[in-house]
Amino acid sequence: MLKLINFRNIIYTLGFGLIIESIFMVFMIPFGLYYNENTLIAEIASVLITLGAGLFLLLLSHNKGHSYYNLRESFITIGLIWILIPLLGVLPYLLTHQISGFENAFFESVSGFTTTGSSILTDIESLPKSILFWRATTHWMGGMGIIIIVVIIMREMRINGTHLMTAEGSLLGIEKIKPRIIDVAKRLYLIYFILTFTEMLLLMFGGMTFYDAICHSFATIATGGFSTHNSSIIEMSPYIQYVIIAFMVMSGINFTLHYFFLTGKLRNVLHDEELRVFLVIIVVAVLLVTFNIAPLFSHFENAFRQAAFQVTSIITATGFASYNYELWPNMSHMIIWVLMFIGACVGSTGGGVKVARYIIAFKTAKLRFTHILSPNSVKTIRYNKIKLTSRNIQSVSAFITIYFFMFIVGTLVICSTGTDLHTAASSVITTLGGIGPGFGKIGPINNFAGMTVFAKYYLSFNMIIGRLEIFPILVLLHPAFRKA
Amino acid sequence: MLKLINFRNIIYTLGFGLIIESIFMVFMIPFGLYYNENTLIAEIASVLITLGAGLFLLLLSHNKGHSYYNLRESFITIGLIWILIPLLGVLPYLLTHQISGFENAFFESVSGFTTTGSSILTDIESLPKSILFWRATTHWMGGMGIIIIVVIIMREMRINGTHLMTAEGSLLGIEKIKPRIIDVAKRLYLIYFILTFTEMLLLMFGGMTFYDAICHSFATIATGGFSTHNSSIIEMSPYIQYVIIAFMVMSGINFTLHYFFLTGKLRNVLHDEELRVFLVIIVVAVLLVTFNIAPLFSHFENAFRQAAFQVTSIITATGFASYNYELWPNMSHMIIWVLMFIGACVGSTGGGVKVARYIIAFKTAKLRFTHILSPNSVKTIRYNKIKLTSRNIQSVSAFITIYFFMFIVGTLVICSTGTDLHTAASSVITTLGGIGPGFGKIGPINNFAGMTVFAKYYLSFNMIIGRLEIFPILVLLHPAFRKA
Repeated sequence: MLKLINFRNIIYTLGFGLIIESIFMVFMIPFGLYYNENTLIAEIASVLITLGAGLFLLLLSHNKGHSYYNLRESFITIGLIWILIPLLGVLPYLLTHQISGFENAFFESVSGFTTTGSSILTDIESLPKSILFWRATTHWMGGMGIIIIVVIIMREMRINGTHLMTAEGSLLGIEKIKPRIIDVAKRLYLIYFILTFTEMLLLMFGGMTFYDAICHSFATIATGGFSTHNSSIIEMSPYIQYVIIAFMVMSGINFTLHYFFLTGKLRNVLHDEELRVFLVIIVVAVLLVTFNIAPLFSHFENAFRQAAFQVTSIITATGFASYNYELWPNMSHMIIWVLMFIGACVGSTGGGVKVARYIIAFKTAKLRFTHILSPNSVKTIRYNKIKLTSRNIQSVSAFITIYFFMFIVGTLVICSTGTDLHTAASSVITTLGGIGPGFGKIGPINNFAGMTVFAKYYLSFNMIIGRLEIFPILVLLHPAFRKA
Repeated sequence: MLKLINFRNIIYTLGFGLIIESIFMVFMIPFGLYYNENTLIAEIASVLITLGAGLFLLLLSHNKGHSYYNLRESFITIGLIWILIPLLGVLPYLLTHQISGFENAFFESVSGFTTTGSSILTDIESLPKSILFWRATTHWMGGMGIIIIVVIIMREMRINGTHLMTAEGSLLGIEKIKPRIIDVAKRLYLIYFILTFTEMLLLMFGGMTFYDAICHSFATIATGGFSTHNSSIIEMSPYIQYVIIAFMVMSGINFTLHYFFLTGKLRNVLHDEELRVFLVIIVVAVLLVTFNIAPLFSHFENAFRQAAFQVTSIITATGFASYNYELWPNMSHMIIWVLMFIGACVGSTGGGVKVARYIIAFKTAKLRFTHILSPNSVKTIRYNKIKLTSRNIQSVSAFITIYFFMFIVGTLVICSTGTDLHTAASSVITTLGGIGPGFGKIGPINNFAGMTVFAKYYLSFNMIIGRLEIFPILVLLHPAFRKA
């Protein structure tokens, strides 16, 4: 059946993706001109190579227009596009000689597009501002890419009626969004733009330059975490820190809820189970950390702000640092570890396992208990009032199983490169969850520069499969995919 | 419905359990006499108090004979008996003044009966041999207790036809054992005795005294891990170490497979999925650790033996130490961590999540992948050729969810007592899985003496709920249990 795959379709989309990438690349050039940087030629070359590669693929595909994708083609396209776009995204880094070593440029590029925010740069501020703008742009483009995936998943559901993603579908709350899929995509992008623009204005209001404001709002709304400063958010004013906290939380929420909110459907927002649990986790974690770290600060407000910043930064998988949390007591370390495993909400730009999956896993556990005592009691699990099938439930537990398995295998692999256990384990969970910093040698004030070449490639691969929520990539490797 | 619970039944069984405990206590006295120890009076007092308490409960119950238990009564009985028996098990420690502090004696007693093997003793050899014999006896009695639970579960299945434990049932392979439940219990005990006796003879053949041989075989077959030596198994001969390795592996295997083996039904043994995976994990882990630690040893055989000993000791949840594995490289640490989360086989005396549950979790994940690609393909999961219901599958994922949740909550709790993260996390998993040693301050050559009183109680509680495989205890706490 492999022959039934329409490769033209795939190549067409890949080419189209590269052309979009080249358009995004153009925007770094004005910054280079404004700041009078000598990277102009290399940047123009990057744009042209990417554009050329995109046009080549478009011509190669001989595709006259859009035809329908089937499920296999979607998976292949999604997998390839998330490798190809970061692959050309290294051009501005390499051609300007700002990053040496392909593995370093690839790591930085993948980290950008997957909105992870882990970096191999040791002195960020030494880079030209135009290149750092490209670095922030990769985050923002990656965040848009996640929305495309959500849209593709929705489209698939309509096209061939498969129940593949019904769990995802009901998690996303798309049953409640009636209009056509393409309209949904437009609305999600509108929200994405509104959030980015609003944060940018608020940051500028707090005294940030236009350049810093746009870079940081790109990195926040995509839950990326790249900063243009060596010290990340550590030295910024409390006002700026609070603005970023607020927008990190918003970016970690299902975007369809923002849409409901903007259209006045407050009931849908207030009754969303995932949102409630997500906010409860944040509040509890912030309170625990605040009281745990309070003795380290002279002002209680400062302790609260640092706690709120790091908790939201980690749970939403943004990864900005407002403080070196490695200096905090053990219990706060443990809470940060736990948050790394939780993640944000489904349908947001955030990463991790996602709150909704844990809710369903716990509801499953509760159902099993209730059955032990009353074998004839209710047999179904509802999520946001929608009945889940046993296939939905199995999908969730399968996801969690594979996620933890990937974590363990990854930690073994990184340990085998000679890294200590603490650093290795945190490097794997932070890349798998798209978070950014970890513990030990990759803590919030350190970076990934010291890792081996192999570890950098492995962790880049980890970022991609984590970002794509594992399944599509693993499906590509599954024998049934080749056989069928 | 709470009034329908037959408390007489429960009290009767508790009393009966204490009488059995007092009989087991008697056996330490000959050792005290033989080694001319001055603990005789305190030991006789311990026996009489336990016997008296048992008889009191028996009289209180006014129970004329056995009546059937329902499910709730079984859960209450199992929960209470695993608290009450360790509670009286502290008497020999406290009355002889060998352990000071009730929390310490309770920790040691619970660790014994749950076959965990974690200890608060800093100088084991300074204790009278009769008391150390009691300590080993608690392991052996605990191992027998696990078999009783297995039998009760089987009985429940027969009595009220509930499907509660069908997942467990099919995991145990009891469909294949035709005879009456009471015969099954007898046969499992026979295997338990044969294994203990054989190991004892082989240890004596290797030069161990009768006393050391019986204590160590009690601790091995129950997968406990208490040794009578400060240095555990570290200074013993290679022959002794290999004997213990072999019996640890056997104790980690489903006891019904031993029964099949002894009755010549080799097909059942060879086709058991869990056994195969269990052995594959051991072989792979031993090879990885051997090559990882080889540079530390002058002889390859020594590296292999230490790797084999520690891998089997941890995966079977025995917890004997043949080497201070904290001195090993990172990758071996990581492998030991992973083994701590795996555990032995269902129906063995070993602890942990158990291999069969992971097999089912991975089969679920695989089924979900296959469905993504071929929505109309096979829809069921088979384990040992038996079709699993979606309820079985949910039970397994519920168990794993709760297990990891208990691990995370426990680590947070122990961290909050001021313990470092590494020590805290390993103390929780080692007690939950019934293993024994951990990392950091509770590594293989350290002990739990330095923990706070609260931490000791919390970890004791952890050992009990881990040993009872979590569900019965959590069921007792579940609102439906009180409401129903």
